[in-house]
Amino acid sequence: MAGTDEIFSRKGRILIRNALTLSGKRDVSIDANGSIEAVGDTLSRKYDQDADFVIDAGRLVLLPGLVNTHTHAAMTLLRGYADDMPLQDWLTQKIWPLEAHLTGDDVYWGTRLACLEMIRTGTTAFNDMYFYMEDAARAVDEAGIKAQLCYGFIDLSLPDKREQEIKATERLVSHIKSMKNPRIRPAVGPHAVYTVSPEGLRWLAGYSSEQKIGIHVHLSETEKEVNDALSQYGKRPPQILADCGILTPGTVAAHCCWLDRDDCALLGRHGTYASYNPASNMKLAVNRALPYQDLRDAGVQVALGTDGCASNNNLDLFEEMKTAALLQKYSWNSQTLLPAPEALGMATSAGAKALGFGNGRIEAGQPADLILVDRDAVCNTPLHNLASNLVYACSGGAVRTVLCQGRVLMYDREVPGEEVVLAGASKAAHALVTRAAGT
Amino acid sequence: MAGTDEIFSRKGRILIRNALTLSGKRDVSIDANGSIEAVGDTLSRKYDQDADFVIDAGRLVLLPGLVNTHTHAAMTLLRGYADDMPLQDWLTQKIWPLEAHLTGDDVYWGTRLACLEMIRTGTTAFNDMYFYMEDAARAVDEAGIKAQLCYGFIDLSLPDKREQEIKATERLVSHIKSMKNPRIRPAVGPHAVYTVSPEGLRWLAGYSSEQKIGIHVHLSETEKEVNDALSQYGKRPPQILADCGILTPGTVAAHCCWLDRDDCALLGRHGTYASYNPASNMKLAVNRALPYQDLRDAGVQVALGTDGCASNNNLDLFEEMKTAALLQKYSWNSQTLLPAPEALGMATSAGAKALGFGNGRIEAGQPADLILVDRDAVCNTPLHNLASNLVYACSGGAVRTVLCQGRVLMYDREVPGEEVVLAGASKAAHALVTRAAGT
Repeated sequence: MAGTDEIFSRKGRILIRNALTLSGKRDVSIDANGSIEAVGDTLSRKYDQDADFVIDAGRLVLLPGLVNTHTHAAMTLLRGYADDMPLQDWLTQKIWPLEAHLTGDDVYWGTRLACLEMIRTGTTAFNDMYFYMEDAARAVDEAGIKAQLCYGFIDLSLPDKREQEIKATERLVSHIKSMKNPRIRPAVGPHAVYTVSPEGLRWLAGYSSEQKIGIHVHLSETEKEVNDALSQYGKRPPQILADCGILTPGTVAAHCCWLDRDDCALLGRHGTYASYNPASNMKLAVNRALPYQDLRDAGVQVALGTDGCASNNNLDLFEEMKTAALLQKYSWNSQTLLPAPEALGMATSAGAKALGFGNGRIEAGQPADLILVDRDAVCNTPLHNLASNLVYACSGGAVRTVLCQGRVLMYDREVPGEEVVLAGASKAAHALVTRAAGT
Repeated sequence: MAGTDEIFSRKGRILIRNALTLSGKRDVSIDANGSIEAVGDTLSRKYDQDADFVIDAGRLVLLPGLVNTHTHAAMTLLRGYADDMPLQDWLTQKIWPLEAHLTGDDVYWGTRLACLEMIRTGTTAFNDMYFYMEDAARAVDEAGIKAQLCYGFIDLSLPDKREQEIKATERLVSHIKSMKNPRIRPAVGPHAVYTVSPEGLRWLAGYSSEQKIGIHVHLSETEKEVNDALSQYGKRPPQILADCGILTPGTVAAHCCWLDRDDCALLGRHGTYASYNPASNMKLAVNRALPYQDLRDAGVQVALGTDGCASNNNLDLFEEMKTAALLQKYSWNSQTLLPAPEALGMATSAGAKALGFGNGRIEAGQPADLILVDRDAVCNTPLHNLASNLVYACSGGAVRTVLCQGRVLMYDREVPGEEVVLAGASKAAHALVTRAAGT
């Protein structure tokens, strides 16, 4: 059996013994390709003999890795840069001017910091939309987690800009495909109906279909977005997307606060996933919560996302599960809406399926994207109900060990190379603010 | 200089060197009585020589200890026992039947668990209302933090019950006074206008005045409470309390969701503190957020509380600060309401003043109720704005070291005796549920 140091680097077979899962005590065997090979009450001793590393999980809870279905990862560099401002001032005076000074290197360091934060809080896959995404891909490749990455396509109805955005999209997709890293999937990223023309949307729909890749879009975040769409196109935002071919079973639509019942039905008919971002929606005061019951009634699968760190300001999906469940209850005036097991399903199985990384369940044949949570943490004491404790009491700090595709990325809270990432990201953030202040 | 083991037990002088505070780098010297003796940019070397223990805080953030102004600490034993149910079913089928089986020993262990959780998340003082409060006092005495404790007075307008509640209140106050522990203060605890008669309220007001102790009451948590008060008394709840003498500068009124502007003005005129409990209010779907702007306009000081673990389900005030700031923005449709520095003030200075434990500032003469937060945690990277990171990005897991009245209760995440508390509380919770199931 290998020592602790070796567990981070080696490829091999891992056996997780005696873990508590949502369906009882389980042993889980992971093969050398990083897939779950067997799951049982007690796997035979043969698995011990075959394993290169055995994790004694007798005091740990085993869960599927959490999946963050909407973020702008490199915005970790902007964490705390500007808050508590009116939305337009915040965007035009703070966020956009700073983003204008971003470099590919900044995006690399911001994405490394985001990956570190996600690993430390139990997230094994995320859905990202930003710029300089080749650099984001490099960061994800090195960090060891999974991501669907897209370039945020914004043409502002200008034909020249559209051509540039098309080229940027094609470049990123080719680049990611050339990496041949199964942990990293390309997607197209129509920013929103108010920033992308119907022509742009149609091109993206066709290209995603031809390339067999996903779509990541913002949808109906604010009432203004809906009203502006009605004024400009005489249609609500989901209908605009549907008419341009953007609503597909490979599409993740973020926010979805201002969907009405017909909008929900439209998403349901197209098999599109909704990504719920409660902390961001509250912080930016969007004034309506995602209509969870209507989406469920329409058969839409709802996944969870944090949004970027400028509007959250962290990437902790444990915290987000709680905010998700609380905001539904509060907004729709129901003590029973979005119970804890459904919040866990949002953050695991719905997310994994939305991004095409398996089904987010602990089953033979699924990727070994798994996290181990401290069963003796205060948040798990007492242990009347595991799902309730995970959603309502624990934060990501209760996560001890994280595996992605069978590779150990954090072991007992240790992430190799963490100091380098913290120092690199701090330095990049400081230099970015200094550059922006100098102009 | 003493070793790490000794820091937990000894009494003596402590010097905190080179900590980052909200107003810059500071050294803080603590005298042998647990008071802050001196605060400076750089204290002279004399302080090093005099100190029994020096904490190098060069990579730490120093804050006043957080203050939880409304909880039912022993309800940690009910964490996750029942959630996501309609309010009346939850209370009548789950919470009250279980509480009927509570013993003094249970309250001791539940309160020990609560104190452990508060210490681990940076809270140094709390305001508690429950039963078997002599046992809660024993737990607080042993845990080393500060509390204002009251017996939850409920007479249901029955004269016999009122006499019992009066005796229970007097017994607790005498008991706490006899302990002569300056960390533990007694208070009276009129549960609410719908559970305590005007006669009961008047007696409590007179007794608190005579004994020079505080008052802890639930106020206008739900719309039903307001409507029922109007039906029964022709007055809104704050007016009932005012007319019975319950609104004083030593009163903490919890929840305050359904206050109108006149209610806010009434609290302001009486100098009463409001305790804001956003997570509980969302989970129980009370359908209105505390009117923070109106309370501020009326000059009311607003402090922060978690409520009990059955309706939250943790005691992490870092998480609560974020929820507080987000819920105000969302509910009152304003991106600027309750900015991060004000959320920190709620959780520190407003809370300390509300409970009579100093002013919650790092100043000479104040009690050394202090916490040290990891400056190199992901949530503090990058460090553009300390207040923003603390409120919006960090959870209580970022707290490394906690001092209460100059005594070190946690040092670099180690709390002596933690395993005993976790085991004792787990055992008590399990036995409680087993007893309740057997009846």
